[in-house]
Amino acid sequence: MRSSPRRAVDSVSMSYAALERHHHRLAQLEHLEAIAAWDEATMMPEGGSDARGEALATVRGLIHEQSTLPAVGEWLAKADADRGTLDAWQGANLREMKRAFVRATALPQELVEASSRAESRSEQAWRKLRKENDWATYRPFLEEVFALKREVGQALSAALGLGAYDALLDGYEPGGRSADIGVLFRRLGEFLPGFIERVLDKQRGETVLVPTGPFPIDEQRALGVSLMKRLGFDFRRGRLDVSHHPFCGGVPQDVRITTRFDELDFIKATMGVLHETGHAKYEQHLPAAHLGQPVGRARGMSVHESQSLMLEMQVCRSREFCEFSAPIVRAAFPGAAAREPLAFSPENLHRLVTRVRPSFIRTDADEVTYPCHVVLRFEMEQALIEKRLEVADIPEAWDAAMKRLLGLSTAGNFENGCMQDVHWPAGLIGYFPTYTLGALTAAQLFEQAESSVPGLGQSIARGELAELDRFLDEKLWGQGSRLETDALIRNATGRPLDTAAFERRLTRRYLGSA
Amino acid sequence: MRSSPRRAVDSVSMSYAALERHHHRLAQLEHLEAIAAWDEATMMPEGGSDARGEALATVRGLIHEQSTLPAVGEWLAKADADRGTLDAWQGANLREMKRAFVRATALPQELVEASSRAESRSEQAWRKLRKENDWATYRPFLEEVFALKREVGQALSAALGLGAYDALLDGYEPGGRSADIGVLFRRLGEFLPGFIERVLDKQRGETVLVPTGPFPIDEQRALGVSLMKRLGFDFRRGRLDVSHHPFCGGVPQDVRITTRFDELDFIKATMGVLHETGHAKYEQHLPAAHLGQPVGRARGMSVHESQSLMLEMQVCRSREFCEFSAPIVRAAFPGAAAREPLAFSPENLHRLVTRVRPSFIRTDADEVTYPCHVVLRFEMEQALIEKRLEVADIPEAWDAAMKRLLGLSTAGNFENGCMQDVHWPAGLIGYFPTYTLGALTAAQLFEQAESSVPGLGQSIARGELAELDRFLDEKLWGQGSRLETDALIRNATGRPLDTAAFERRLTRRYLGSA
Repeated sequence: MRSSPRRAVDSVSMSYAALERHHHRLAQLEHLEAIAAWDEATMMPEGGSDARGEALATVRGLIHEQSTLPAVGEWLAKADADRGTLDAWQGANLREMKRAFVRATALPQELVEASSRAESRSEQAWRKLRKENDWATYRPFLEEVFALKREVGQALSAALGLGAYDALLDGYEPGGRSADIGVLFRRLGEFLPGFIERVLDKQRGETVLVPTGPFPIDEQRALGVSLMKRLGFDFRRGRLDVSHHPFCGGVPQDVRITTRFDELDFIKATMGVLHETGHAKYEQHLPAAHLGQPVGRARGMSVHESQSLMLEMQVCRSREFCEFSAPIVRAAFPGAAAREPLAFSPENLHRLVTRVRPSFIRTDADEVTYPCHVVLRFEMEQALIEKRLEVADIPEAWDAAMKRLLGLSTAGNFENGCMQDVHWPAGLIGYFPTYTLGALTAAQLFEQAESSVPGLGQSIARGELAELDRFLDEKLWGQGSRLETDALIRNATGRPLDTAAFERRLTRRYLGSA
Repeated sequence: MRSSPRRAVDSVSMSYAALERHHHRLAQLEHLEAIAAWDEATMMPEGGSDARGEALATVRGLIHEQSTLPAVGEWLAKADADRGTLDAWQGANLREMKRAFVRATALPQELVEASSRAESRSEQAWRKLRKENDWATYRPFLEEVFALKREVGQALSAALGLGAYDALLDGYEPGGRSADIGVLFRRLGEFLPGFIERVLDKQRGETVLVPTGPFPIDEQRALGVSLMKRLGFDFRRGRLDVSHHPFCGGVPQDVRITTRFDELDFIKATMGVLHETGHAKYEQHLPAAHLGQPVGRARGMSVHESQSLMLEMQVCRSREFCEFSAPIVRAAFPGAAAREPLAFSPENLHRLVTRVRPSFIRTDADEVTYPCHVVLRFEMEQALIEKRLEVADIPEAWDAAMKRLLGLSTAGNFENGCMQDVHWPAGLIGYFPTYTLGALTAAQLFEQAESSVPGLGQSIARGELAELDRFLDEKLWGQGSRLETDALIRNATGRPLDTAAFERRLTRRYLGSA
C-alpha cells in the first residue's frame, strides 16, 4: 500500500485526469450537436425539423446534465488544491473547466427550461411578426424574455460576483466587463459621427460602377472556393455550403462555413465567404494537442470576430487585395467583365467594398457605421437588464439613438429598427458588444502584424498570407484559451485593447491620411 | 397517502411510462448518430474522419450504457408484472423493449469492446488486402473475428435460450430461426440450378442492346429524383445524395438515401435509387404515433429488404413499369435516345433489367442467381459458428459451393470469392439470410397485393402506386413492430413464408409461363 503523501498527489492527478476524460466526452457530444445543427441549417428537409429540434434539445440537456454532475465539482476541488503539479496548459485548462462548471451550476434547472421555452416562443413569434412590422403583438414575447433574462442575470451575478449584465456578457466574452467596454464605446461614440460626415463628404465626389449581373450561382461558388483555397482554408478539413444565415460551424477538425448567394450581387456572398473563412482559419489552427479540452477552444467571441474581420476588413477590403483579386474576379465572370471592364478594375472594386452609407440594418452596414449599431444595442441592453429601461420603451429609445449616431429616424419602422435582429428575440443578451470589440481587436492585431511582418502589404497584393498566418498562429490561433483575452491581446500587441489602431486604419483608408 | 393496491397499479404504469421516456431519449441519441453517420458517408471531408470516429464511438457507447442501466431492468420487471393494463401497442412495445434489454445486457463489456476492436482492425485490413487478393495475410484477422463471434454467440445463446448462430441471427431478424430458413433455402437450392439453366437457354436467343453513354451525372440524378417523386418518396422528409456504398439512413422523419453514379451506365444507379426508395418508403410510412419507441420501428431486416426488393424487383423491373418509364428515360437522355432508339424501347429496357448471368459477385447478381450467393454464405457461416468449419477452410468450401450452385470456380480468386463482402470482415454474422428472406417475402406480399388490388399491373404501367401503397400501409408499414415477423406475414398473406410465390414469379417472368 502506498504512503499517504504519495496517495494525496496521485489522487489530485487522478482528479485532473478524470476532468480531462470528462471534457473529452463532452466534446464528442458537442461534435454531434454541431454537425446536427449544421445539417439542420444546410441539408435538412423542412419535414425533419420537429424531430431534429427534439434531438438537439436532448443532447443539449444531456451536455448540461453531464456538465453539472456533483463528481465534477469534487474533481475540480481536488485538482485545484494541488494545481502546483499542473503545467501552464493544464492550469489554464483547469481554469476554463471551473469557469464552465460555475456557469452551468449557477442556474436552477427550472429557470433554464423556462428561459429556453420563452426564447423559443419569442423567436418563432419574431420570425412572423417582424415581416408584418407588428411591434404591439410582439412586445409581450420580448417582455417575457427580458423578465427571465433579468432573473438569469441575477442568479449568475450571485455565483460569479459580477453585475447582472456583466454576468451575461461573460458567457460570450470571458473576462469582458461593461465598464471597460463602455470606455471604448464612448470613445467611438465621440469619434464616429464627425468622422462619418467627413467620409460621406469625400465619397460624394467619387464615381462607383456597380457591376450588372446576373452572376450565376455556380460561378460565384467557384470564385468563393478558389479564394478560400488561396487564403488558406483547408478543404481536407472543411466545406462550404449554403444556408439562410451565413455561419461558421462544425468542429475544428471539420469546419463547415456557409453563405447565401444572390444572382444579382456577387460582392455580398463573396465578402461573406471571406468573413467566414477568417472564422474557419482560427478554428482550423487551434492547438491540435488540446482539441476536445476547454483550453483548446477559441478564446471568446470578440477574438473570434477579430479573425473574421481581420480577413474580411483588413486584408480583403484593402487596395492591395483588390489588385490581387480583380483578375480572378474577371476570370470568374468573363461575360460581365468584358461588357463592363471599368466596373471590374481594382480601383472600382476597392471603391465598391469601401463605400460608406448610414443605413438601418446592422448586418448590411459598412465597417465605419457598423459600430454605431453596436453601441446603440450595448447601451440599450445594459439599461434593460439593469431596469433603467423597459421593453415598452425600446422603440422610442432606438429612434433617439439612431438619430444621434447615424442621423436616421426609425419611428414606426420596427421591422428595420428594433425588430431587425434575432439576438434579443432568441435571448442572446450580452452578445452584441463582441462584434465591435472584434473590430477593434482586428485593427490592433493587424497594425502589429504590419510592423512584425515585413512587406505585408506587398504579400497581400500577391495573395500570399503565409507570413501573416505564421504571426497569427504564434500569437493567437495556437494559444487556444491558454491566456485570458486581455493577456492574449497584450501579449500579441504590447498593450491592452484600445480604439487607436481602429481609428488610424479608418482614417487612412477612408480619408487617405494618417 | 394512497392505499397500497392503488399504489401498486400506479407504480406499474409509472414503470411503463418511465420506459417510454427512456426509449424516447435513446431515440434522440440514435437520431444524432444516424445523421452523423450519414454525414460521414456523404458530406464529411476526409480529414474529419478520426474526430468523427471518436464522436460516433462515444455516442454508441453512451447508448449501450443507457440501454443497460439497472433501472431499466427494474422498470421492465414491474411493467411486465402488470402487462394486463397495457393495450396491444404498449404490450408489443414492452416485448420489444425486453428484447433489446436482454440482448444489450447479455454480453460482458470487455467482450463487446474486444469484438469491436477486432472487427475494426479486420475491416481495415480487408479493405487493403481484398484488392491485393491476399487471403494468406488477411486470414488471421478473420480468424480473430470468428473466434470472438463464437464467444458472443455463446453468451447470447445462454441469455436467449437459442443456439449460438440463431442468437446472432436474431439480432438482425428478430424471431428468425436457422432451422426454418434452412428448409426454405434447401428448397431454393433444389429449384434454382435447373431453373437457371432453362433461363440461360431461353435468353441465349434474345438480342439485348446496351445503351452507350456517356450519361451525365446531373441527368442521371434528375432521372432518379423524378422517378422517386413519382413512386412516392416524400422529399419534404428526405433527400438523395451520393456515397461510395448506397444505403438508406437518417430517421423516419428525415430519410436519407444514397446512390453512386457511373457515367457509362445509368441502369445501375437508377435501379439502386429505386431499391433504396423502397427502403425509404417503409421508413416514411412507419406509424407516426409510435416513432421513437421500439414498437414504432421497422420489423427486422428481412421485411425491410422485402420493401426495397418489392419496389425494385416486382414493380420496377416489370414489363409494365418499363412501358411507363421508357419515355421518361428517353426524355432524360435525349441525345443517346435519338442515336439509339431501339436501345430505349420498353422491350429492350425490360430485357436489360431482367438479364440473367451467373457471376462471382453477389452485389452485381440478378434476382435469379442472387439467392445462390446467399445460400452459400448462410450455410458456411452457420458451420463456422458451430465449429464444423474453420476459417482456414473457407476458400475451398467457397469454391465447391460456387461450382455446385452456379457452375463457377473461385479457386485462387479470393478477391471475387470469399473476400468480396464486407459483412464477415466487419463481424456481421447472421445478416446474409435476410437478403433472400426479403426476396421471398417481397414475392409473397406482391402476389397477395395482385389479388387484393384490382388492376395492379395496369396501374404500374401508368406509374401509379397509390393503391399498392395503401395495401402496404395497412398490412405492413403502419404496423411497425407491433407483430412478430411471422405473424405479420401470415396476417398480410394468409400463410407463413414459403418459396412458392417467388418460384411462380421467376417462372412467369423468366420463362413466360406459370
